[in-house]
Amino acid sequence: MKVSRRGLLGGGAAVAGVGGAFVAGRTSSPATADVANVGGGQPAFPFRGTHQAGVVTPAQERLHFAAFDLTTDSRDDVVALLQAWTDAAERMTQGEGAGPVGPTEGAANLPPDDTGEAIGLPPSGLTITFGFGPGFFERLGLDDRKPAALADLPHFPGDTLDPARSGGDLCVQACAQDPQVAVHAVRNLARIGFGAVAVRWSQLGFGRTSSTSTTQSTPRNLFGFKDGTANVKAEEDAALEEHVWVQPGDDGGDWLAGGSYLVARRINMTIEVWDRQPLEDQEGFVGRTKAGGAPLSGGQESTEPDFTMPGSDGPVIPEDAHVRVVHPSENDGIRMLRPGYNFVDGSNALGGLDAGLFFIAFVRDPGKQFVPVMNRMATTDALVEYLRFTSSALFAVPPGAGPGEYVGQALLA
Amino acid sequence: MKVSRRGLLGGGAAVAGVGGAFVAGRTSSPATADVANVGGGQPAFPFRGTHQAGVVTPAQERLHFAAFDLTTDSRDDVVALLQAWTDAAERMTQGEGAGPVGPTEGAANLPPDDTGEAIGLPPSGLTITFGFGPGFFERLGLDDRKPAALADLPHFPGDTLDPARSGGDLCVQACAQDPQVAVHAVRNLARIGFGAVAVRWSQLGFGRTSSTSTTQSTPRNLFGFKDGTANVKAEEDAALEEHVWVQPGDDGGDWLAGGSYLVARRINMTIEVWDRQPLEDQEGFVGRTKAGGAPLSGGQESTEPDFTMPGSDGPVIPEDAHVRVVHPSENDGIRMLRPGYNFVDGSNALGGLDAGLFFIAFVRDPGKQFVPVMNRMATTDALVEYLRFTSSALFAVPPGAGPGEYVGQALLA
Repeated sequence: MKVSRRGLLGGGAAVAGVGGAFVAGRTSSPATADVANVGGGQPAFPFRGTHQAGVVTPAQERLHFAAFDLTTDSRDDVVALLQAWTDAAERMTQGEGAGPVGPTEGAANLPPDDTGEAIGLPPSGLTITFGFGPGFFERLGLDDRKPAALADLPHFPGDTLDPARSGGDLCVQACAQDPQVAVHAVRNLARIGFGAVAVRWSQLGFGRTSSTSTTQSTPRNLFGFKDGTANVKAEEDAALEEHVWVQPGDDGGDWLAGGSYLVARRINMTIEVWDRQPLEDQEGFVGRTKAGGAPLSGGQESTEPDFTMPGSDGPVIPEDAHVRVVHPSENDGIRMLRPGYNFVDGSNALGGLDAGLFFIAFVRDPGKQFVPVMNRMATTDALVEYLRFTSSALFAVPPGAGPGEYVGQALLA
Repeated sequence: MKVSRRGLLGGGAAVAGVGGAFVAGRTSSPATADVANVGGGQPAFPFRGTHQAGVVTPAQERLHFAAFDLTTDSRDDVVALLQAWTDAAERMTQGEGAGPVGPTEGAANLPPDDTGEAIGLPPSGLTITFGFGPGFFERLGLDDRKPAALADLPHFPGDTLDPARSGGDLCVQACAQDPQVAVHAVRNLARIGFGAVAVRWSQLGFGRTSSTSTTQSTPRNLFGFKDGTANVKAEEDAALEEHVWVQPGDDGGDWLAGGSYLVARRINMTIEVWDRQPLEDQEGFVGRTKAGGAPLSGGQESTEPDFTMPGSDGPVIPEDAHVRVVHPSENDGIRMLRPGYNFVDGSNALGGLDAGLFFIAFVRDPGKQFVPVMNRMATTDALVEYLRFTSSALFAVPPGAGPGEYVGQALLA
């Protein structure tokens, strides 16, 4: 019996034609919507468009993020890689196998075109987003095309980074409602990339911590709080252009316009210590209530904080409260689009959980947005006492691939 | 604003009275069924009963497994721990917070009774299953109550175990449809256990690999195959008594009757090597088709394999095929109940994924069931070339707690 992932889905969802405009909304496909989905799934998002999917897509529940190092200096090899990755990513996001031949349809004497663990699973809202790290340009002799903003991030106070899970020449962010689908995507891209790239580090996130769309509620991080309420949202067109998408006149805009930068930071939380703090202290560190996420100055989660409101001992939202330290109004209007995922990676040497937040920010210019806010946070945020920054990476996220194009074509062609 | 997990759920689901008979079916609660659930959720399973939940419960999608070491020699401390754990586990499985006071309802100057990250989430089919390792008995001076079957597992050919993530004095298996709920449970039990236990190792599983009920379809492991079709299923009452539940006349049956043994094995798969094997070789190693999971001797997934059917070169199901090596008919009728979960824990030093199967087996006697089958597998199974056994642990799983009892009471009271 031969069954492709496509076959079981009753015909792959057609890729929506996206003529210049990115479609963040769901494409509705009876073929996929009828399939029971363990992940509370969604049908397919289009892979092609002006922007890559997975930036303003309403954040999915599960993440598999992988950083790769190049194992070749050949620009031709890398073009072939990106062509193959683009093709495979488009198929997988539409609920099909990674290759043109179904996982069990190929010649019996050849390795399958797909590893098979996603057979029968729907697209599950899978998005695959590619990025290029600083080393990508150096290794391929593309230094003259490397934007100044793609400099290595500076060392921040309190950073205790593990080099083995920092950096990388390329990245793949796979987000889906079903972790099996996200893992399948990364695994197959790694398989396809054999000979040109090797996995440098990889991170699973089990639960989203942010809303990136006004249609979503804000979930909770492992401090038990809602965070990221002031995120740039997918529906804020003007704010996206100002804060997230690289513009044609920006440095690197000749190939990166319509793209963005992805900052990834693995942030361990000392949750065992946190859990011993009184509720009022926790709320003071965050600057929001734990129950509903409203600012301590009152209202609902969406209410703007009033940083001037007096409390019994200084302002009701303390000077070092997280919400104040990172708020746009306190940072020259700087905003970011921050998806983020909870992680637990086993245990640590102290008899606790190796747990925290895998932070992701999409910004138009990391040096002007992420770096100043991170510096301010590292030096003045009450939360930092309960955080350990263990990994850091920066990637340029090229714009989306149009019909017939491969991701990164404007840089490499 | 004060909101407990209970409050948001509109009243916790009542614990179903379980008078001697374990209820594997779902309790239907409008309050929980109405809540949107990211994990495709289920309402609450009863915590109390003849058997602990989480053994024959239809396997949930996500796992957080933690092994703990005792940090006390005091039997009184451990009784208090198990009382507190029983109380918290019962609450959490019913969708409530870990403590009697809601996560944000307590005194502002005290640490909350619950860490809060599951506020607003439904029970999500959470089960919490406790076990005692060999060291538990030694540390507490209970050697005379330790069943002979709870001996440390022998070294198997090919074992490359990491001692830091093997063994443990106690274990907690938390399974749920939503990983945030499973992680929340383990994290709160670790918090409650501070001073008596410390986490020794911990493992997340992102996707179930087995069906433990006839109501479930068999999912796929990271080889892309269906496995465990011959599992003991929850509906096979006689087989459960014969193969899974410790009987009153068994060694240790005075306190362990109605319980079981849990074997945990972290099995890395060399997926990058596997993915380069031709389809027919993969199918030969497993003894089943990749597409539908039918034995190579024909039929459907549920068809009994015909190990005598000739092929072109020996039997059509090879002598070293996994399905043959571990099949009850080739192992004196030995069967096990095997839930199991896919895992990816970042990357390895070879530029690949640190991925595989977290194997769990529930058996009536590990020495008579798991050990001989594992020895046979280690020496004759074609799959073993693609496996690395990196962790191993064995626990006695006490019977369920009746009303007013704590887990393990028959051993410790």
